[in-house]
Amino acid sequence: MRLSSCLALAAVLALAGTAAPLARPITLPPPRAAGDFVLVMHGGAGSYTDASPERLEPARAALTQALEAGRDILARGGSSLDAVEAAQRIMEDSGAFDAGRGAYYTREGVPEMDAAIMDGRTLAAGAVASVQHIAHPISLARMVMERTKHVLLVGAGAEEFARSQGVALVSPYYFFNERRWKSFQERQAAEEKPKASAMPAGEIYGTTGALALDKAGNLAAATTTGGTTYKMPGRVGDSPLIGAGTYANNESCAVSGTGVGEYFIRNVVAADICARVKYLHQPLEQAADDVVMKELVEQHGDGGVIALDRAGHVATPFNTHGMMHGVVRADGKITIETFKP
Amino acid sequence: MRLSSCLALAAVLALAGTAAPLARPITLPPPRAAGDFVLVMHGGAGSYTDASPERLEPARAALTQALEAGRDILARGGSSLDAVEAAQRIMEDSGAFDAGRGAYYTREGVPEMDAAIMDGRTLAAGAVASVQHIAHPISLARMVMERTKHVLLVGAGAEEFARSQGVALVSPYYFFNERRWKSFQERQAAEEKPKASAMPAGEIYGTTGALALDKAGNLAAATTTGGTTYKMPGRVGDSPLIGAGTYANNESCAVSGTGVGEYFIRNVVAADICARVKYLHQPLEQAADDVVMKELVEQHGDGGVIALDRAGHVATPFNTHGMMHGVVRADGKITIETFKP
Repeated sequence: MRLSSCLALAAVLALAGTAAPLARPITLPPPRAAGDFVLVMHGGAGSYTDASPERLEPARAALTQALEAGRDILARGGSSLDAVEAAQRIMEDSGAFDAGRGAYYTREGVPEMDAAIMDGRTLAAGAVASVQHIAHPISLARMVMERTKHVLLVGAGAEEFARSQGVALVSPYYFFNERRWKSFQERQAAEEKPKASAMPAGEIYGTTGALALDKAGNLAAATTTGGTTYKMPGRVGDSPLIGAGTYANNESCAVSGTGVGEYFIRNVVAADICARVKYLHQPLEQAADDVVMKELVEQHGDGGVIALDRAGHVATPFNTHGMMHGVVRADGKITIETFKP
Repeated sequence: MRLSSCLALAAVLALAGTAAPLARPITLPPPRAAGDFVLVMHGGAGSYTDASPERLEPARAALTQALEAGRDILARGGSSLDAVEAAQRIMEDSGAFDAGRGAYYTREGVPEMDAAIMDGRTLAAGAVASVQHIAHPISLARMVMERTKHVLLVGAGAEEFARSQGVALVSPYYFFNERRWKSFQERQAAEEKPKASAMPAGEIYGTTGALALDKAGNLAAATTTGGTTYKMPGRVGDSPLIGAGTYANNESCAVSGTGVGEYFIRNVVAADICARVKYLHQPLEQAADDVVMKELVEQHGDGGVIALDRAGHVATPFNTHGMMHGVVRADGKITIETFKP
């Protein structure tokens, strides 16, 4: 760890101050009835064949709680940014998803987590990657967005920034999770055998994502993940990369992805869906479908996305066996699905 | 440093083997006369007002040498990937740009470097970020692309991967550069004064980029950088982020950016230029101009790009005072410009 940095950082942050003002607040009129709002979330695409009720129920319960928390913020006129952050914090706390207390462990037996948040009104964005001691990576991503001039901070530097902002660094035991520990040990044992299968059957990319449209008509997106189980230390997937796994732009749409991140990076998936909406004037559902069910499928890129536009349209395509996802609107009713109808 | 990792990594790499095959080789016919090729490079946008001949001449000489090296590879039928990597290695070695031996130092007084490379034929991509002991980040990025299933490795994990591949980790003194050391000391002194200017006048974002179109009609892109002077440790800019500062796709175009990376990330600049070409059928020059001279200017996002398509069109818009850039085609003649005509 770099010892000299905290003081220097604190001094410089005082000068750097808040983020540079973005000269691009997009103020299109809200194209919906006043008072409408939408929150869409996912809890990861993948193979749910091995998923027992004992495993799925806590995930459904956590997703419900997260949707309720975000819904309540949106219902009282709160911002889409506040809603997606609050909802994601609950997912990170739950231990039921590959984020926060449920994050997979790397080959070194500890979590390395990534998160990103983006404001569709201003294009302001913040992200962190490869952090090991942060209880709520999504909130640290928001601090990067609001308290620095930067978008992405990684590793020890991101944790030094956290400390300078009064965020406590937590012990690895904070992230102890019996299922993840068992999965790590099984994978470690398998790796020691020659010709071990590289990918266990029934893996769920339990990344979590949230998109919101608030009463003012502004979109926001947030994604938080622990990456893949037994991943190489330092590997960063699509979640914290703006345009790959996370994107929000009032002019087009908001997207959060889940799946094999590398394919989402190479295809700049989130930005591509929104580019099709903006430039080809495709309906959101077609744009999301064309990317996830055609482009990604051609490349064997497993995964899915949730997408949301300013008219309140929602798309949830996935090319995997399942993707747990939920939606709530102004009527307050929560709908959660994991498989295609 | 993580001590346990190297053995585990080596074992796992043996299993992980080479990158997953990408089921997407794009085999459009080359739309140019057989035997044509193009190499375009930049050495950073910024304010060249303070740039003396003693400073600019070594940069021009290095850029010339890099263009020659890439040209020679392309002329004998080599791939665009080989050409951009070879050219960028010369830029990294030169000490005249913000990359490799010329990388700026962070607040901790050491370089933290980023690089990315992308193959427009397959969309294969590799990148590294926040590496401190790598002489040629661009070659490590290519190893990530070709020898792992991943796209982006950061920090200590990326360096462990380098070591597992037989890449020597170099001392910080390898990156000693009198000008960067002086710039670091001046900035450090300024930061200690209250109300110091956050950004010195005349700063050049000396990121370097290379794009090539080879005789087979395939595009490739590469970008390598040391980021900004006195940056926060762990800060990652647009250069290693696919779609932000680096992108190549035979179906649309190749782009490498230079400037204030955060604006390039939020606007997913490289992918957006190519999306305009692909979806709006805009000429390359118009697409690049609209993004750099309109979208970025509106947001006060300083910088520029080089862009190249499969027809051999080149665009080099920049909204800063200057951007050193050069082009060479099959006639072998090298042209280098820094300012607008």
